[in-house]
Amino acid sequence: MYDLLIVGGGCAGSSAAITARQRNLKVLMLYAGDGALEKAARVDNYPGLPQTSGGDMVRLFRKQAQDMGAEVKRQLVQKVLPMGEGFSVLAGMDLYEARTILLALGTSRVNPLQGEEELLGQGVSYCATCDGMFYKGKHMIVVAGGQEAVEEANYLSEIGRVSYFTEKPHDKAGLSAAITQLSGKPKAIEQAGAGMRLVTDQGSLEADGVFVLRPAVAMTQLLPEVAVQKGAVVTDENLMTNLLGVFAAGDLIGAPLQAAKAVGDGNRAALAISSYLRRQAAQVEQE
Amino acid sequence: MYDLLIVGGGCAGSSAAITARQRNLKVLMLYAGDGALEKAARVDNYPGLPQTSGGDMVRLFRKQAQDMGAEVKRQLVQKVLPMGEGFSVLAGMDLYEARTILLALGTSRVNPLQGEEELLGQGVSYCATCDGMFYKGKHMIVVAGGQEAVEEANYLSEIGRVSYFTEKPHDKAGLSAAITQLSGKPKAIEQAGAGMRLVTDQGSLEADGVFVLRPAVAMTQLLPEVAVQKGAVVTDENLMTNLLGVFAAGDLIGAPLQAAKAVGDGNRAALAISSYLRRQAAQVEQE
Repeated sequence: MYDLLIVGGGCAGSSAAITARQRNLKVLMLYAGDGALEKAARVDNYPGLPQTSGGDMVRLFRKQAQDMGAEVKRQLVQKVLPMGEGFSVLAGMDLYEARTILLALGTSRVNPLQGEEELLGQGVSYCATCDGMFYKGKHMIVVAGGQEAVEEANYLSEIGRVSYFTEKPHDKAGLSAAITQLSGKPKAIEQAGAGMRLVTDQGSLEADGVFVLRPAVAMTQLLPEVAVQKGAVVTDENLMTNLLGVFAAGDLIGAPLQAAKAVGDGNRAALAISSYLRRQAAQVEQE
Repeated sequence: MYDLLIVGGGCAGSSAAITARQRNLKVLMLYAGDGALEKAARVDNYPGLPQTSGGDMVRLFRKQAQDMGAEVKRQLVQKVLPMGEGFSVLAGMDLYEARTILLALGTSRVNPLQGEEELLGQGVSYCATCDGMFYKGKHMIVVAGGQEAVEEANYLSEIGRVSYFTEKPHDKAGLSAAITQLSGKPKAIEQAGAGMRLVTDQGSLEADGVFVLRPAVAMTQLLPEVAVQKGAVVTDENLMTNLLGVFAAGDLIGAPLQAAKAVGDGNRAALAISSYLRRQAAQVEQE
């Protein structure tokens, strides 16, 4: 059982991990892909690191979190489930337990395809490692949201036949030659007999299953109960969301979308989480 | 006329200066002495600068602000006066003008001596450079709040006779041999005929004037109209105080008292100030 599981490994998440470790919490930080900062060639206004690239900055922050004892893994979190006194978190094939959650996913907005969320678990999957074996020797469609999909698609191509569509242009270096790359922008997923149909702007294709492989999961899927207003997760002055024990920090909670602000958020959230856990522990003792 | 004058040169102030410069504002940052962070031997939880001393961190931040084009000076701000469309700021012998003010003084609490504020300008002074010459050949008492007082006391000792009391123990290296060091903790200042009397816990001493030389000025003196609650300056979601054009950031606005949080505050404040100035400019154009 972790004291704190952080969903997202950018500025806010890393800053929270660092301060939570200083408060001696057991911390796991999971991140899935590159965030907005990693795409910045140079950031000039983060105090202490003048003229640093966004990528270098995030790597430095993550390493510091690790050096201080936080566990850091590259893994897409698919679902956060409230459970008793804490949370179960599904990421890939792994299930983690944590007393508190910090949402620090940045601004990565996910626009699910039409039909995608309704058909999840009924022919649509977000996780190649988890569900690939169900399609042994069969035909799978991959809807790739970024280069993170390449490795998982390759894995699927060892199990069955793979047709690969891209949602956004991305680097496909290393994609297996066994995979069929197709053009057409994915629009919708439908049931088609016992199989599935992907509808694109250039026609449609049927297969046995559809893997949607993006570096992020929509909040409606990850934790649908969390309150969102004008695209930003709503928090109180302690950065707690409407859900007890679930906190949020960084770009996710609104402007300004800045490294320094996100780092400040992460710091505040970690300290609020530390107090929250102390209060919880005191309550348990009283009972 | 500066776009932004920052009172205080710690994490919040430096971060604001850096981001304000990135937004191309004309920035002056004034700081008087060492803040709480400078006393920290090591800070572990500021992302990007693991295991750095507080002093090194602040110097790095200030240098970055300067490198980006902010003017940075070591000068005690004594008074901020609202004036027309902006503010006049009195610091030492200098008077600056600025469109907006950022209060980023940290937690340096000042407990004025009894009688001190009432007698300011009537025998009590905060500024050796400004008022020293009024006491040529006369006897002056210095109430020293820290080592910053040493240089100013030396200056006064060239003008007249100086008796030196300390509020807190501090490094007095370099204090002129012409100065009489006295023990006794300062308690109150009173009028005594045409002169002044300093009352200490070990008796009292009379002189022609009293110089209170601390690295900070009480908010009641600096800008008495600003709203304070439970020791923290009150701000809205844009970090603006109850006074139009006066913003606040860092330890001054409340817990957690952390470098990362103060840096985040400074960033947010600078961006809010930039928007505020754009709105003001648009209004002036409309009129």
